[in-house]
Amino acid sequence: MAPGVTPPRGMRDFLPAEKARREHALGVIRRVYSNFGFDEIETPVVEDYARLHSGLGGDNEKLAFNVQKRGLTPDDLGKAVNTGDLSSLTDLGLRFDLTVPLARFYATHRGDLPPVFRSIQIAPVWRAERPQKGRYRQFVQCDIDIIGEAGPLAEIELLTATAGALRELGLTGCRVRINDRRLLTGMLDVFGFEPDEHSQVLITIDKLDKVGVGGVLEELRTRGATSAAVDALELFLTRVVPENPGPFGEAQIRAQLPDGIDDAVIAELASIGVAAEQADAAATGREAGDAPFVVFDPFLVRGMGYYTGPIFEIEHPELGYSLGGGGRYDGMIGRFLGSDVPATGFSIGFERIVDLISLPEASAADSLVLVYDKSVPPVRLVSLKAELVAEGRRVRLEPRVKNLKALLARVETDGFRSFAFVTEQTASASDLEIKPLG
Amino acid sequence: MAPGVTPPRGMRDFLPAEKARREHALGVIRRVYSNFGFDEIETPVVEDYARLHSGLGGDNEKLAFNVQKRGLTPDDLGKAVNTGDLSSLTDLGLRFDLTVPLARFYATHRGDLPPVFRSIQIAPVWRAERPQKGRYRQFVQCDIDIIGEAGPLAEIELLTATAGALRELGLTGCRVRINDRRLLTGMLDVFGFEPDEHSQVLITIDKLDKVGVGGVLEELRTRGATSAAVDALELFLTRVVPENPGPFGEAQIRAQLPDGIDDAVIAELASIGVAAEQADAAATGREAGDAPFVVFDPFLVRGMGYYTGPIFEIEHPELGYSLGGGGRYDGMIGRFLGSDVPATGFSIGFERIVDLISLPEASAADSLVLVYDKSVPPVRLVSLKAELVAEGRRVRLEPRVKNLKALLARVETDGFRSFAFVTEQTASASDLEIKPLG
Repeated sequence: MAPGVTPPRGMRDFLPAEKARREHALGVIRRVYSNFGFDEIETPVVEDYARLHSGLGGDNEKLAFNVQKRGLTPDDLGKAVNTGDLSSLTDLGLRFDLTVPLARFYATHRGDLPPVFRSIQIAPVWRAERPQKGRYRQFVQCDIDIIGEAGPLAEIELLTATAGALRELGLTGCRVRINDRRLLTGMLDVFGFEPDEHSQVLITIDKLDKVGVGGVLEELRTRGATSAAVDALELFLTRVVPENPGPFGEAQIRAQLPDGIDDAVIAELASIGVAAEQADAAATGREAGDAPFVVFDPFLVRGMGYYTGPIFEIEHPELGYSLGGGGRYDGMIGRFLGSDVPATGFSIGFERIVDLISLPEASAADSLVLVYDKSVPPVRLVSLKAELVAEGRRVRLEPRVKNLKALLARVETDGFRSFAFVTEQTASASDLEIKPLG
Repeated sequence: MAPGVTPPRGMRDFLPAEKARREHALGVIRRVYSNFGFDEIETPVVEDYARLHSGLGGDNEKLAFNVQKRGLTPDDLGKAVNTGDLSSLTDLGLRFDLTVPLARFYATHRGDLPPVFRSIQIAPVWRAERPQKGRYRQFVQCDIDIIGEAGPLAEIELLTATAGALRELGLTGCRVRINDRRLLTGMLDVFGFEPDEHSQVLITIDKLDKVGVGGVLEELRTRGATSAAVDALELFLTRVVPENPGPFGEAQIRAQLPDGIDDAVIAELASIGVAAEQADAAATGREAGDAPFVVFDPFLVRGMGYYTGPIFEIEHPELGYSLGGGGRYDGMIGRFLGSDVPATGFSIGFERIVDLISLPEASAADSLVLVYDKSVPPVRLVSLKAELVAEGRRVRLEPRVKNLKALLARVETDGFRSFAFVTEQTASASDLEIKPLG
């Protein structure tokens, strides 16, 4: 690396091998989602500042990269200094997620979209987070959303399509944890938390995986949450949970919740899980008794405040992190329209799965390096190459060098699988003696 | 469209039909370029402000969208007001082309790249131009570049690969105009322009298509260019040009230039053109006497100042604009390395070709809409759908509505080609009666 010549902080270049793997994975996801009846759309990478900062993006709004207004004058600067309002210097921002742009897109184009719109968005987003291992300032999200379908069919479609995409990528054995925001709210009501405490209590409960029961209870008490409610939560969190609560279903969900929770919500969530479980079993040939695809998790929260119904997170048992997640957010899409529109979505964390995927070997099978003597006229080289490309091969020209072994090792690293020498005697492709590499 | 809810000024959303067409075209270009031995890379959409404004981007630097520094304080603002230096408020900018990022990428990763590196970049760029018909503030460029090859083989490979990509997109009959910056410089020397006038004179000559011979001469005289040189240019521009200068080649190039031009440059340009012509003839089955693929244009200039050798522009005779262009820019790639590296590149103007392309009908052949009665349980619908997707079909679920005709017309517009009803009696895919749409 030349000293000091690097990509911007927290961002990455992709060299050919990595780019090929990324494009392969994106192509698989795109194809599977399309087969499941979703339609891909695209929006600009920037949105108007006011829209990005309308409160829909939660904490991510603070992480937005803002674009400076063009043609700023010293006068504009002076005004910003006087008012202390730096936002007057910016009119656009790089999107920090694909959900705010989707809400804006739907408001713009609703009349041209089907009543139930199933969208695919595969695109980068930007967040000015402190760079750290595995966390980047530009990263790709793969979102599917269903807008206009209020019933559980939407969630079942999302889960089935996502499972299909992960399977097609070779990520078998994934499982999905599901819950419902209404069950969480119901639980908090039963324990006795006040409605205006709910969002803060949920933020704390979301840390259960990280800080454990003791940590959650301590944080709630420190924050001054309703004391009797915290006690009730403690009693519930430390209760004896039945070892084997039986197969996924209404009874199993109810067994993991306190009494007094809305049966209709439980039944709806069960119907989603059972259907997703059945679809997965049919697709994978999994049998009863194998590890389930769907798991109810009464303490799954999901960070964003906009969720209103079923929420889910997909994970691989052998990995310590979620591969994606989503949920129903009925209030949000309509924000720019002024009317409510039901919506639910699922986002694959692309950067987390792309490292788990290998390129199919077949893509290199027809690749060929032509190692040519420098005395061969360029026109002959290029017509040989064009002839081989027309046969469906991937072809690269390399001048013959003294250290042939190093050359062949290098092109093999670059993904080529065969080579042939081109000399002044080579008149056409039929004269080539193609040899395997490696 | 909801009032006031639009994408940012000069930028576009892509609805499913348009997005599908774009992805199809990008996929074709990606595949053809890859088969021709080019390797795709990716860089972040932003680069450091100083690098974007290092003078390599010409006039485009002025059109950059700048990203505001994070965590700006009123103090920073105050300093900017005092110094009048607004650039202290920005540290990043959206790239305005793919060439500056390529130069930076090459400087960063040279050690990991082959000695002759053939890159593909397919990605959006941003320019804060005044929006107008057909000109957007975010648009896609498809660039191929060959770095490390000083000889004409590089140009021949670029032209052959580009012609291959356009053919594969169905754009037949394209032709390429070629010239060489050294021929232009040689001509200006012969006419008697001073070296320090060259770049301004070339900018004026570049307008020949738009303002004609009279306009060019008038502008040169108004600007005070060396008077005798302008007279010599006038004599040359108004000379009698032979009607049929013969087939493309050295003699034909020389016939279109004044005496006193470097023969070696003419021979090199001719070798590029002849090879590209032959490769195109072999690929298309074009015969001698048909319209040529390669045309020498002694007044092709190309706007950017960084070109040093052969330059080219591709066009379709039936369209009034160029579809792409490029040239050799040997001085530029090494700028961030501190050493010269030969390089030449070709950029397809994607936005100009995508409207000329239609989606292959085959991609819709296996598409199927399931029109379901609302009484059918979601789990049955989703497992039916999954079964059909597994067979390789693209499947969408639509609830049955009263106006069935309108529904079927709409899904046909969305690219579906067949449909089937799903009722409570439908147990599996084999019960479906699949009917063609339209």
